[in-house]
Amino acid sequence: MSVTAAKGFEASGVAAGIRREGKDLALVRATTRATGAAVWTRNRVQAAPIVVSKAHLELAEPQAVVVNSGIANAATGARGELDAVATAAEAARLLSLDVEEVLVLSTGVIGELLPLEKIRAALPEAAAALSALGGSDAAEAILTTDTRTKQAVSAADGFAVGGMAKGSGMIHPNLATMLAVVTTDYPLEPGEAIEVLRPSIETSFNSISVDGECSTNDAVVLLSSGAAAFERTEASDTAFGHALQAVCADLAAQIVADGEGATLVAEISVSGAASGAEARAIAQRIATSPLVKTALFGRDANWGRVLMAAGSAPYNGGYARLDPARVSLVYNGTAVLSGGAPLAAEPPVDGATCTIELDLGLGDGRASYLTSDLSYDYVRINADYRS
Amino acid sequence: MSVTAAKGFEASGVAAGIRREGKDLALVRATTRATGAAVWTRNRVQAAPIVVSKAHLELAEPQAVVVNSGIANAATGARGELDAVATAAEAARLLSLDVEEVLVLSTGVIGELLPLEKIRAALPEAAAALSALGGSDAAEAILTTDTRTKQAVSAADGFAVGGMAKGSGMIHPNLATMLAVVTTDYPLEPGEAIEVLRPSIETSFNSISVDGECSTNDAVVLLSSGAAAFERTEASDTAFGHALQAVCADLAAQIVADGEGATLVAEISVSGAASGAEARAIAQRIATSPLVKTALFGRDANWGRVLMAAGSAPYNGGYARLDPARVSLVYNGTAVLSGGAPLAAEPPVDGATCTIELDLGLGDGRASYLTSDLSYDYVRINADYRS
Repeated sequence: MSVTAAKGFEASGVAAGIRREGKDLALVRATTRATGAAVWTRNRVQAAPIVVSKAHLELAEPQAVVVNSGIANAATGARGELDAVATAAEAARLLSLDVEEVLVLSTGVIGELLPLEKIRAALPEAAAALSALGGSDAAEAILTTDTRTKQAVSAADGFAVGGMAKGSGMIHPNLATMLAVVTTDYPLEPGEAIEVLRPSIETSFNSISVDGECSTNDAVVLLSSGAAAFERTEASDTAFGHALQAVCADLAAQIVADGEGATLVAEISVSGAASGAEARAIAQRIATSPLVKTALFGRDANWGRVLMAAGSAPYNGGYARLDPARVSLVYNGTAVLSGGAPLAAEPPVDGATCTIELDLGLGDGRASYLTSDLSYDYVRINADYRS
Repeated sequence: MSVTAAKGFEASGVAAGIRREGKDLALVRATTRATGAAVWTRNRVQAAPIVVSKAHLELAEPQAVVVNSGIANAATGARGELDAVATAAEAARLLSLDVEEVLVLSTGVIGELLPLEKIRAALPEAAAALSALGGSDAAEAILTTDTRTKQAVSAADGFAVGGMAKGSGMIHPNLATMLAVVTTDYPLEPGEAIEVLRPSIETSFNSISVDGECSTNDAVVLLSSGAAAFERTEASDTAFGHALQAVCADLAAQIVADGEGATLVAEISVSGAASGAEARAIAQRIATSPLVKTALFGRDANWGRVLMAAGSAPYNGGYARLDPARVSLVYNGTAVLSGGAPLAAEPPVDGATCTIELDLGLGDGRASYLTSDLSYDYVRINADYRS
């Protein structure tokens, strides 16, 4: 399952006492010499573990990942970076690795210091518990406000890709308050992992939104053990690319479905935009509009709000191009607007999904986005998060 | 008072039956030859009344404004524009004006056609009710989800500036789902009104946010009757500028305080930014962050979320500059972060206001923003809006 589905990986999840209860410390390591890559949040405020892991990744191929939930170790200054390094160092000692071969990830409250002694005390237990069956424990230990674990596997002829993720609030591109660790036994050359990881992320983790927030701690890590050890061909490379993309998309969809307070998942498709970048800007704007999202929560087909959002999608210092007279909209399967004129149709919205298909009639640009609704529970969860 | 505080204006507000109950049609007219200007939403989807009023304003100085609430007449195609013109034409006939001397504004649900016959039937009553005491009736007739009228007056030596506004959701720069009509008897030359209106708006209506939405219908209209008829001096011009700014800021603050579901108003001050534009981008990002706003609702001094938002303020295709090691933050009067290091202070947040002072330590850029919290009631109001 998940992060231990591919050959050559072990994982564990234990309770270090960082959160009030439950597992909160996960460990993943390769049992062969692994190669890997990571993609990080673009937030200007990057958490200490991001700063430290970036530096480690420049020095060595990653062999293990330590993840804690409960405290983000962000906005913690120099002390926070020392704590992140100390965490990596203790894991490295236990696993007989160099410190730079260990990546550290954190998620939770911003602005509080890591309880380093608790983590140091729990790491030996986590190391001892490492097992090829430990994927689910690890997936559980990385959760914060998530209500369920996110795990995905894609097995192909001779190799597997597996992953775990967390995230339900602050979910938004570049990246999302989201952590994901994806492993594979498909053999990759050093330096090659980042090439395959980037495109997979664009159409998965970077095309979802729960609340438009961009976290200080987001990271997606890919590790390859190479343990499948077969002859790569062009066909197998393609199959691996598909499998990686499938795992990332599966995890991303699970994150949206478990969005904080989410009662509905909406799939937004924008076509006919003047450019691909503008299609993406418009899809993102619709996906993050509080008015669109509250209407979805109310199961109110108030499609005019989609137009309002589409017309104000930040792009290039202004708004993405849109000609109201050319816009057509299909809301949950019912055409409601054609060539800018309303069709007096009232589409039913009553299930747990909704599709929003906007055709701008301008060009060939297209983009898709997944989003959740904005509910009372989103407010409750985030008004109470620390209490 | 409000829009009829200055000499030379009459107003009225009547029930046309567009909304289920209450007044929903307002009329404001100058009793002398007026000069005026307007600033419009930058949304690419502009409502029919915006399209029509823009065209009218290019042809003539405005003498009257018709405002309806309940239906926005947006995303209504060619039929919507004809309805807006027909509304202006009927008002012009009743007031003995040319059609292009009448501006029309609408606010309400997007994507529904205006009930033109109801408006035509009610306009004679509105015209008959015009009075120098009608400002409050007009201010009431333009409301939608607002819970109270927004009126402001600034009287100076020899002249007055008065205004009314509506808006509680979709409140966000350029402009906000917000309508405002401001009148003055201070004499302005044709073409001069726009010069004084623009700077007043930047620091008032364009520095508030309730939900980050940018409406299809936003407009601020300024009319000058010139009825004060005194000799302008440099000093009186300055006094007028201050009075106009004061009325706009007063109305803007009333809008935030009456934000949909708002229980708290937060004042965000960003200083030390690399540039003024980046200060503004960062202030706006904080003001629109769902996580910051839900924490405010929960009276939770979760200031880390301010950092998260500040670090991801869209600017120039990336994020506004911010060096985490130089940032200091004072949260509701208590210093919580200094030079990037947390101070282990827990600021109390318990009243109906909160101040957030962020110093980036990079340069001289500064900006302020008013915002409201994100509450259960915001969700309730917007999930139910049409039902």
